[in-house]
This record gives sequence, structure tokens and C-alpha cells, in this order.
Amino acid sequence: MNKMTESRIEDFLDELSSSKPVPGGGGASALGAALGVALCDMVLHLTEGKKKYAEYQEEITALEKELEPLIKRLSDGMDRDAEAFEPLSRAYGLPKGTDEEKEHRDRVMEEALLTASEAPLSLMEDIYKAAKITERVSVIGSSLAISDAGAAAQLLNASMKAASLNVFINTGLMKDKEKAGGLNEKASRLIKECEGLCLKAYETVLKRIGA
Amino acid sequence: MNKMTESRIEDFLDELSSSKPVPGGGGASALGAALGVALCDMVLHLTEGKKKYAEYQEEITALEKELEPLIKRLSDGMDRDAEAFEPLSRAYGLPKGTDEEKEHRDRVMEEALLTASEAPLSLMEDIYKAAKITERVSVIGSSLAISDAGAAAQLLNASMKAASLNVFINTGLMKDKEKAGGLNEKASRLIKECEGLCLKAYETVLKRIGA
Repeated sequence: MNKMTESRIEDFLDELSSSKPVPGGGGASALGAALGVALCDMVLHLTEGKKKYAEYQEEITALEKELEPLIKRLSDGMDRDAEAFEPLSRAYGLPKGTDEEKEHRDRVMEEALLTASEAPLSLMEDIYKAAKITERVSVIGSSLAISDAGAAAQLLNASMKAASLNVFINTGLMKDKEKAGGLNEKASRLIKECEGLCLKAYETVLKRIGA
Repeated sequence: MNKMTESRIEDFLDELSSSKPVPGGGGASALGAALGVALCDMVLHLTEGKKKYAEYQEEITALEKELEPLIKRLSDGMDRDAEAFEPLSRAYGLPKGTDEEKEHRDRVMEEALLTASEAPLSLMEDIYKAAKITERVSVIGSSLAISDAGAAAQLLNASMKAASLNVFINTGLMKDKEKAGGLNEKASRLIKECEGLCLKAYETVLKRIGA
């Protein structure tokens, strides 16, 4: 199967809007976040080598090195999300006629729900890393491109919340409430911390463009 | 030149992260919004024909008809944004040595700033239409796919704010403060109304998935 990042944009949008189970919210979150990271990287490229920002040159190079692998990781996240959903999709199809079948289905389902929750959580961890960098870029990025850092912050914050819904919808169905609670707590913490960073970056950008 | 929607996703991300002036925040906002609309359309597809939601069947068909052209309009918005930026990019290159050159450059620049502000505003109007539909879908959409309506709401809200930065950065440079103020006011109204709709949709989804 081709990787989703190799799809043409219009074909991906067609697949997304279709009633196929994937790509769905998880894939769209991964791509939305990749758009944000790419924008942030663009701001760094437009800042580096400029006299006005010479004092940040070393930091810019370090931030680019941290940021660039995230574009690929996040966009590949579209496929990881689809793969993580597969076992769940199969589990829903299992028979539940006899008690043994029900018991088997429940066990497989619980495992599949865990897998389907962990994929968006891993995506959220990457988004959080990108949000930290974007917050810094909103301060040191070139004024000429700074609106793009604000756009990046918005896209990252939204993708974080969008991805979290795939955690909550799956943990809500898990029988192991303790494990589910732990995953939810982690998701809520990531949302909150990311929101703080992204709102700060957005406000900084609004101030810098005088809006 | 090929349309951006015909690009492969990985190539688009490469172009976005490069120091080329387009695609930038405008293009990323257009694609982010198209992702949201496609997700919302998916929820409608997964709801139609289901017995449990039979009472909404007519409304679902009507909403799909309204929504589907928006996916294409928004994704084509990546190219419209790039085209609208071209005159501004050319204006920055005009000579400003003599008084006549300065005067000519100022006139051309003012016109170019207006063009570069109107493109994201038109994008924002489409996003607002999509947000209205998404709010309704968060209520009548199938429970099985409702997290995707919440992801759509987040992506639309972020794309609206991201697009608005391209209005504010350009109107801030316009000499005609009255015209600039009118455009800013329109942008601020769209942001506020869209945010209301999207937060409502997101809250509805959180409640429905028990998060």
C-alpha cells in the first residue's frame, strides 16, 4: 500500500470525506500538525542568515534540526493512525453469539482500544514538541514572516485537540478504567500545556503585527 | 503551473517549509480548512441511511450538497492565495530611488495590499459557512463518527484564525486606514462568530463521547 504522504492532496481529501474508516480524524490531525510544523520551519528559513537576527543564528540552526524530523514523523503519523485503527476495525467484526465468543471478543477489543488510543497519544507528544519550538519562533522569527508562526501555532493547537478526541473516544470504551484514566490524564495534560504555548505564540504574533 | 491540490502531500510540505514566499500561512489555512470540511462530510456519509438518524435524512442530504463544493473551493484557495500574493511580491521589488518611483511604488503597493487582504477574507467566509454546518453535524451526526466532527470544528477554527493573520498583516501596511479598518472589522467578526460555532460543536462532541 502506498504511503498517504505520497497521495495527491485532492485524492487524500476525497478519501478523507468518504465513508471509509481511515483516513479520519486521526489522519487529518497528523496532517494539520505537519502543516503547522512546516510553516514554523519556513519562518526559521526566512530568519536565518539575516543580519537583524544574527544573535539567534545558532539557536535557529538547533531549532531547525529539532523541527525538521517532526514534519516527516507527523505526516507519517497518518499511516500509523490508520494501522492502529485496523485491529479495532477487525475486533468490531468478531462474532458475539456464544459466551466464549463474547469473552474472546471483549479481550481482543480491549487490546485494540489500547492500540487505537496510544497512536494519537504519540502524535500528541510530537505536536507538543513542535508547539514548544513554535512558541520560541514567535519571539525570534523574522517580522517579515511572523504571521506564519501564528498560523502554525493555531494549526498545532487544533491538531492537538483533534487528535485527543481519538484518545477519549477509545479510552471511554475500555474496561480497564485505571489504564483508561491514566491515558486520559496524559492527554489532558498535553492539551493544556500545548494550548498555553500556542496561545502565547499567537498573542506574541498579534502584537508583533500590530493587530 | 500545476494546481497545488495536484501536488503530492510530501511535496507540498517540502514547498511549505522552504523559504519560498508561497505556499505559506494562507495556503496552509486553506488546506487545514479543507481537511475540516472533508471530515465533516465524512461524518454525514457515515450518518446517512442509518435507521437511528432517519429523521435527519433530508437535512443530511441538503448539508452534503452545501458542504461538498466547499472542499474544492477551500483547497483551490491554496492557489488563489498564491495568486493574490504575487502582485505584492512584485510591488516589493519596485525601485524607490526617485520621488516619482516612490509615488508609483506606493500606489502599486496599496493596490497589492488590498488584493492580498481580500483573498484570505474570501477564504474566511467559506470557513464560516463550513463552521455553521459542522455545528449542526455535531448534533445530528452518527455517534460512531462524532469525534471526527469535533476534529473538524477544531481545524476550522484554527484555519479561520490562521487565515485572518494574512488580513491583519496586510491591512496594517495599507495607507487607506478607513478601508483597512473595514476589512479588519469584517475579519474580527468572522473570527468571533466562527469561534462560537466551533467551540459549541467541540463541546457537544466532548459531551457525546463522554469526555
